[in-house]
Amino acid sequence: MNITIYNEFIHEKKDPKVGAIYPHGIHGALAEHFQKQAHVQTVRTATLDQEEHGLTEAVLNDTDVLLWWGHLAHNKVADEIVERVHARVLAGMGLIVLHSGHHSKIFRKLMGTSCSLTWREADERERLWVVNPYHPITQGVGAYIELEKAEMYGEVFDIPEPESLLFVSWFEGGEVFRSGATWHRGRGKIFYFRPGHETYPVFYNPEILQVITNATRWAAFEGNTAARGIGEAPNVPQSIEKIENKD
Amino acid sequence: MNITIYNEFIHEKKDPKVGAIYPHGIHGALAEHFQKQAHVQTVRTATLDQEEHGLTEAVLNDTDVLLWWGHLAHNKVADEIVERVHARVLAGMGLIVLHSGHHSKIFRKLMGTSCSLTWREADERERLWVVNPYHPITQGVGAYIELEKAEMYGEVFDIPEPESLLFVSWFEGGEVFRSGATWHRGRGKIFYFRPGHETYPVFYNPEILQVITNATRWAAFEGNTAARGIGEAPNVPQSIEKIENKD
Amino acid sequence: MNITIYNEFIHEKKDPKVGAIYPHGIHGALAEHFQKQAHVQTVRTATLDQEEHGLTEAVLNDTDVLLWWGHLAHNKVADEIVERVHARVLAGMGLIVLHSGHHSKIFRKLMGTSCSLTWREADERERLWVVNPYHPITQGVGAYIELEKAEMYGEVFDIPEPESLLFVSWFEGGEVFRSGATWHRGRGKIFYFRPGHETYPVFYNPEILQVITNATRWAAFEGNTAARGIGEAPNVPQSIEKIENKD
Amino acid sequence: MNITIYNEFIHEKKDPKVGAIYPHGIHGALAEHFQKQAHVQTVRTATLDQEEHGLTEAVLNDTDVLLWWGHLAHNKVADEIVERVHARVLAGMGLIVLHSGHHSKIFRKLMGTSCSLTWREADERERLWVVNPYHPITQGVGAYIELEKAEMYGEVFDIPEPESLLFVSWFEGGEVFRSGATWHRGRGKIFYFRPGHETYPVFYNPEILQVITNATRWAAFEGNTAARGIGEAPNVPQSIEKIENKD
Repeated sequence: MNITIYNEFIHEKKDPKVGAIYPHGIHGALAEHFQKQAHVQTVRTATLDQEEHGLTEAVLNDTDVLLWWGHLAHNKVADEIVERVHARVLAGMGLIVLHSGHHSKIFRKLMGTSCSLTWREADERERLWVVNPYHPITQGVGAYIELEKAEMYGEVFDIPEPESLLFVSWFEGGEVFRSGATWHRGRGKIFYFRPGHETYPVFYNPEILQVITNATRWAAFEGNTAARGIGEAPNVPQSIEKIENKD
Repeated sequence: MNITIYNEFIHEKKDPKVGAIYPHGIHGALAEHFQKQAHVQTVRTATLDQEEHGLTEAVLNDTDVLLWWGHLAHNKVADEIVERVHARVLAGMGLIVLHSGHHSKIFRKLMGTSCSLTWREADERERLWVVNPYHPITQGVGAYIELEKAEMYGEVFDIPEPESLLFVSWFEGGEVFRSGATWHRGRGKIFYFRPGHETYPVFYNPEILQVITNATRWAAFEGNTAARGIGEAPNVPQSIEKIENKD
Repeated sequence: MNITIYNEFIHEKKDPKVGAIYPHGIHGALAEHFQKQAHVQTVRTATLDQEEHGLTEAVLNDTDVLLWWGHLAHNKVADEIVERVHARVLAGMGLIVLHSGHHSKIFRKLMGTSCSLTWREADERERLWVVNPYHPITQGVGAYIELEKAEMYGEVFDIPEPESLLFVSWFEGGEVFRSGATWHRGRGKIFYFRPGHETYPVFYNPEILQVITNATRWAAFEGNTAARGIGEAPNVPQSIEKIENKD
Repeated sequence: MNITIYNEFIHEKKDPKVGAIYPHGIHGALAEHFQKQAHVQTVRTATLDQEEHGLTEAVLNDTDVLLWWGHLAHNKVADEIVERVHARVLAGMGLIVLHSGHHSKIFRKLMGTSCSLTWREADERERLWVVNPYHPITQGVGAYIELEKAEMYGEVFDIPEPESLLFVSWFEGGEVFRSGATWHRGRGKIFYFRPGHETYPVFYNPEILQVITNATRWAAFEGNTAARGIGEAPNVPQSIEKIENKD
């Protein structure tokens, strides 16, 4: 399996506090983790400032699962690249959207909604409760994952009803949030996972990494390429059964 | 309840056969039907060639449910108008997408998929089986609706898994199709309904009209305007519960 | 619309503290509320100690929506009555299951799961967040309902994935819970709603009553009685289309 | 992975025509197939006339996926065994219900509905269209599977809305049917698959076997044993967070 990790890579360069946590960027930390995973063959990274944001046709065509982290610069992602990623998801590429990626162009395009939510930065405790313990993505995790400090995301999270709701977060300040959920679009599987604020070392947390790793396995393409009618609109003038002449 | 019927209104003017069936356009036939319905206060129509396709801010803001028929000119619908309709759906306007509207910009934007399918024009028999007899939209309809002649739409219909699947079509030529299904996006409800090819008088069929009429009742806004976080991303710096200082 | 309120009616008689809150039983408090609702024609109550628990054929056949509260005596409800209620739900009667009714025979029979959860009695604060503000059942409620003191119910709540998830609860002690959710079974609609512990005056809370009242409207039967094949398995030897002889 | 195949094994002994197709029973034919599959370690069969129908605690505790075929003798399956299978499904055992198993006690118990449908025996052509080409269970199958002769099953199929609808059948006589669908209950995954009438050699059809084989892979347990609250109702008197004294 080949995975590609997109990160806008701005906070880490601008904010020394973030840079200290992720010296090689959020993408770098995740890449280091995935390079050690036996089920992953190739790990690529892609950042906003690269040509085509690093998401060339060649890269995407060779990607089974794409991870997406963005925050400050959603609108700087070129529409053409968003279309390309969208087409690849419909064709079967898995997509894992992390934290503030909820407002990315690609996630909103796939969901069809605003993907808005409420938020607060107050170093508050978060507890991500597993509500679907049977799902491949929640394997190896206990009853909940606790994060000592987190940015809060609160409901209403404006998403289509998830196909599977996996995690619900409790926040110290009084809110809840549907923090892990899955959908498919076309042949592609999508997983949204809430944790990952840039000012905390969330992407070194073993339980968080376990979930994201599980998700790469789950999201990889297993679909059926023989089926007609995905992403095109073929005319099939010849019927299978005989059609009676009614005139 | 105020409804607005959008029709691109091209076939009826170009093709005398279609014009003979719908002398005042598909929108005209539907408008005539809805003007007789007690639950509807105002019926408006909108066509592609009108300024802003007839879908001005004023019209949309006063519309509870919008019906959409298009086929030849999906790409001529201005992106700005699509954005406006999309925003209104998220804010609570119901949307009923008819037949070839499956490929309209607005439906694809709300679904996040290609909304493609297979098709054939061969005057074949269609039978729309009710699979959800408990749903408000299927009230007053028997076990199935039979259409003597129809254009065929076949699977795979590239849509997100419906929230409720209401109708499945049988076609004489050998295909099946999920021909009636519902979703919501934001506060808005969406119903897709397959029948309605321009060369057949489908929109005079009492059972088809019953379904569309039921759908207007179902799709009208009942949502809760007090909830935070739909369509915006408010910061809520003040927590409800006290947050412990962890440093 | 006719509603019937089932309450096992044990706590109120055994425990003076509960009896002081609900001098006429939980059913009595709810009945008093519904008698004032314009959309309700007849309000009946039914208790465990009545003949057939008050749920005779005649009563159920005249009931559009049944409310169910039970806790100590789920196993004393006769299987025959459970079968009868189940058959009525499949035929279209709405069912609203309150609080500890999650472990009732009828709810478990309809869900097919254990309906288990974790729990704690510690007078803790609960906040029921609306996650589906577009749904008829959440109308008239703000972003959340706050209860000063509540029994805690925690995940994993062993239920089938809800068709619509409406409320998620935050608890002071650190848990979350999917506290309002809907399903249908056959022609019948089902709403589970978490609040309602017998030691708190929850069923006098106007917001809680608003939700339950909305739910009675939503759950009342609107289904299609013409459809074949609900609750029976009819042989239909005569085909609609001609079947070719293949021998 | 260990699989167990339950077959009531009556038709094959009573009806020479059926016996000629399945000389070792439907279970025998399926067992022979699965013995050749690399992902399966142990294949067991179980029949109605065996002690405990062959479904002892020991057998079930060692079964990852159970296949179920029954028709004439659903009511002869002991309730105690049904309870045992049900408990194992909630605990994570996969269940694949074949054809007339739709009316088995175990399937109805898991679904909570009547699982009824309409039917006709008329040697008619069936075409199972793939509507979810991205799902693991539909891998390796083309746009549809065609069966020259089949018993017809028609809608309304009284089941809860599937989590994933995979196949929709077209029948020569004019009906449609949701012929492949998935749910989960507790930690267990369930797949219903329509084909398999005893008078046809369906269980030798390579495409049908491909689907069932895929389903065994999909249904095997991957759940999380650490989560609290599945199948029990634990009191958790000690809260994680401190609860304020409100009196």
